[in-house]
Amino acid sequence: MAEWLNGWMAGWRGRRRFADREVVAVVPCPEPRRLRSPIATSSWVATRHPRAQEWSMSSTGTPDPNPGWLSDEELEHVRRRLPLLYVEAVPVRVDGLGQVTEVGVLLRATAAGEMTRTIVSGRVMYGETLREALFRHLEKDLGPMAFPQLQPGAIPFQVAEYFPMPGISRYTDERQHAVSLAFVVPVTGTCEPRQDALELTWMTPDEASSDQLSAEMEGGRGALLRAALASVGRLG
Amino acid sequence: MAEWLNGWMAGWRGRRRFADREVVAVVPCPEPRRLRSPIATSSWVATRHPRAQEWSMSSTGTPDPNPGWLSDEELEHVRRRLPLLYVEAVPVRVDGLGQVTEVGVLLRATAAGEMTRTIVSGRVMYGETLREALFRHLEKDLGPMAFPQLQPGAIPFQVAEYFPMPGISRYTDERQHAVSLAFVVPVTGTCEPRQDALELTWMTPDEASSDQLSAEMEGGRGALLRAALASVGRLG
Amino acid sequence: MAEWLNGWMAGWRGRRRFADREVVAVVPCPEPRRLRSPIATSSWVATRHPRAQEWSMSSTGTPDPNPGWLSDEELEHVRRRLPLLYVEAVPVRVDGLGQVTEVGVLLRATAAGEMTRTIVSGRVMYGETLREALFRHLEKDLGPMAFPQLQPGAIPFQVAEYFPMPGISRYTDERQHAVSLAFVVPVTGTCEPRQDALELTWMTPDEASSDQLSAEMEGGRGALLRAALASVGRLG
Amino acid sequence: MAEWLNGWMAGWRGRRRFADREVVAVVPCPEPRRLRSPIATSSWVATRHPRAQEWSMSSTGTPDPNPGWLSDEELEHVRRRLPLLYVEAVPVRVDGLGQVTEVGVLLRATAAGEMTRTIVSGRVMYGETLREALFRHLEKDLGPMAFPQLQPGAIPFQVAEYFPMPGISRYTDERQHAVSLAFVVPVTGTCEPRQDALELTWMTPDEASSDQLSAEMEGGRGALLRAALASVGRLG
Repeated sequence: MAEWLNGWMAGWRGRRRFADREVVAVVPCPEPRRLRSPIATSSWVATRHPRAQEWSMSSTGTPDPNPGWLSDEELEHVRRRLPLLYVEAVPVRVDGLGQVTEVGVLLRATAAGEMTRTIVSGRVMYGETLREALFRHLEKDLGPMAFPQLQPGAIPFQVAEYFPMPGISRYTDERQHAVSLAFVVPVTGTCEPRQDALELTWMTPDEASSDQLSAEMEGGRGALLRAALASVGRLG
Repeated sequence: MAEWLNGWMAGWRGRRRFADREVVAVVPCPEPRRLRSPIATSSWVATRHPRAQEWSMSSTGTPDPNPGWLSDEELEHVRRRLPLLYVEAVPVRVDGLGQVTEVGVLLRATAAGEMTRTIVSGRVMYGETLREALFRHLEKDLGPMAFPQLQPGAIPFQVAEYFPMPGISRYTDERQHAVSLAFVVPVTGTCEPRQDALELTWMTPDEASSDQLSAEMEGGRGALLRAALASVGRLG
Repeated sequence: MAEWLNGWMAGWRGRRRFADREVVAVVPCPEPRRLRSPIATSSWVATRHPRAQEWSMSSTGTPDPNPGWLSDEELEHVRRRLPLLYVEAVPVRVDGLGQVTEVGVLLRATAAGEMTRTIVSGRVMYGETLREALFRHLEKDLGPMAFPQLQPGAIPFQVAEYFPMPGISRYTDERQHAVSLAFVVPVTGTCEPRQDALELTWMTPDEASSDQLSAEMEGGRGALLRAALASVGRLG
Repeated sequence: MAEWLNGWMAGWRGRRRFADREVVAVVPCPEPRRLRSPIATSSWVATRHPRAQEWSMSSTGTPDPNPGWLSDEELEHVRRRLPLLYVEAVPVRVDGLGQVTEVGVLLRATAAGEMTRTIVSGRVMYGETLREALFRHLEKDLGPMAFPQLQPGAIPFQVAEYFPMPGISRYTDERQHAVSLAFVVPVTGTCEPRQDALELTWMTPDEASSDQLSAEMEGGRGALLRAALASVGRLG
């Protein structure tokens, strides 16, 4: 136990340093949003959660050096015994008055080679805050130049419950029971999807709420996208 | 795997039966709230999660017959590797226009014999919806005659992040990293706290938001109580 | 000025009496929801706002005895110079866990004799709280036996902005610029639409979010209905 | 009537032009937030609502050229007969993860020469959207270089009801019955309070939620500030 506590303390100290740097970001200046550097965050997360980057990729099989983390076998085991906590983000473009003008939807190839649509999504790790998890997954899926502007509001626009069996809720995930906190996040930079995401498509709110798009979306996320649009007053 | 899937299916069938009974509750009648029987729910939950009742008590050591559930050792292990999902509820009394008039706070004795204040709180189990978990913990902490009226709104008033170390968020839980979805729930019946809860104290909104009460509350939940009051427009 | 202040004070004293009665409603008892008597409210409102009942009917032409209220001419004048404040309610039926099972939609005949669909809607009067306005319009549109259960949450699921010209927002109202705070309200009794509402139709969430229904709804309220469903996690 | 419709149409055409310019703002670029030019908005608002700037100052007595607007006498009259619609904003500084680090509170001298604290606040005009009103009042109170980042979310964190008499709600305004939709708005530029605001003070969340500050705030807005902090997870 000393060991995991040790790892924890290291992470906690890393956080303090990170927090110190953040103070810079609040100094008034004409374009302070650029100071919200994603690099500061990710370097910290990378230190603390070395396997964060490979989360959705096939495992390399090397032993996990971090005792506060799960092996693939443990994760498989846990997935049938606990609801897992996720965060999801609907990337948007906004106009000068904060009104949503475009919605970003990811195109992804499944393991079976099928094309499917989804949004930014990923697991919250042990010791990680929701904001850190959200930022990490936005960077992972949209690239380092997306400049996501996490909102001050701390309440998700929807809590999506994914079950391995259909019929319990609108959302399904055959791997697991997952509960996801979903947020709308404006991005102001250039998005370059990485890893298994092939493309980010920008759509109008009307296109994003169409039945056709809903049918293409993974795990029932069409309903989630519509709820996102409703929360910003843009659902058709 | 067949075994856990079997258990799951049994649970799922239980759910269908429960849902059938619920249909009764929506027939218009002068006092249909009485049809929201907590017994229907809990008998189902008891079938599916036989150890739900003893969750926060000392373990009896009998083997877990449900493969879709965790032994105490597994839970200990998982608590250091995954954020656990919780639901919390602030019980309230409302007047004829839905305005909150009183807030219920639990008095509890800790394992060390200290008195502390808290709210309704508990873990979400595998295969369980958030509403089911909320209802189960309300019944467990307030007794079977509390008649909680879960709200149609599906969005928590706050997401509380508990960490074993202080300084990361306002909330701490030395056992684990837990993320809790917190809801305000009107109760219309008689509350009889059970298990380790000694008493439910009804307070005015002003009493509930006082500094003194905050200091007595477990794990920083004074802030959570104030956020609950803010969400119903009753924070002083 | 003395006169209107006088009227105000009378109203205010009426409110105090009303508040006293409300205290009764918070005493724990097996079925306290019955104590949420709509009569207590409406008698008070009737005293204070004698023309509340005829608001949407043609005027009788008798002079308004209440100086704190508007004549028809004044209202016409004001409608072109100020945004008017409205409340709207989507009536729902819920099951034993608070999940929405049915949504109520009003059928109404317009002045031109056309049939149209709408939700509960009406203006907030001078000196009236939002909860009082909501309750008054629910009673007016659904009858005295609907037993609406106003939620403790004080935040609307959406703010709808109605303009006399199309293209500014999703909502239009040719009479005026109106800003409406919209709430989901469970009703547990029997609904008997009154005045110009012909019928209340109960629909499933899927029916209520269909394109066909949206097209029939007045002033763009199809989008509002969908936003209501999204806020309770029931949008398809 | 032709005249007011004319004025309306002019305003509406102004809006279309404004909207055209906004399209520029959604083109992805490294620092698109700078394109959210406050000037574009205010020039339009100035055309359409020529008296917007003097709203809270003493009137100059020149006749109002815009028939879609109220004279001082009319406003006085209406204030005793209708609830007026307001927007309010709590300016905040956020760190790189969107977490609120500082809260801005205005210091103001009242007509009687007393010092009081408040937040950004002002009336919504006829024909104006809530976002336009919010932007206009942020610019008016914080200056043209504040660069407020209106959030995509369209739902206020609280609806504050101000009455001329105490005891009805937590908020009072001796001039009128006003209903205010309150939002948290990050500002990234330099704030230079104008008009009757003497100074903008940046405080930590803990300072902003203190009893002492609450006592200094106008019309009960201490409760509103605390509700703002609760909505961003920063209330002590």
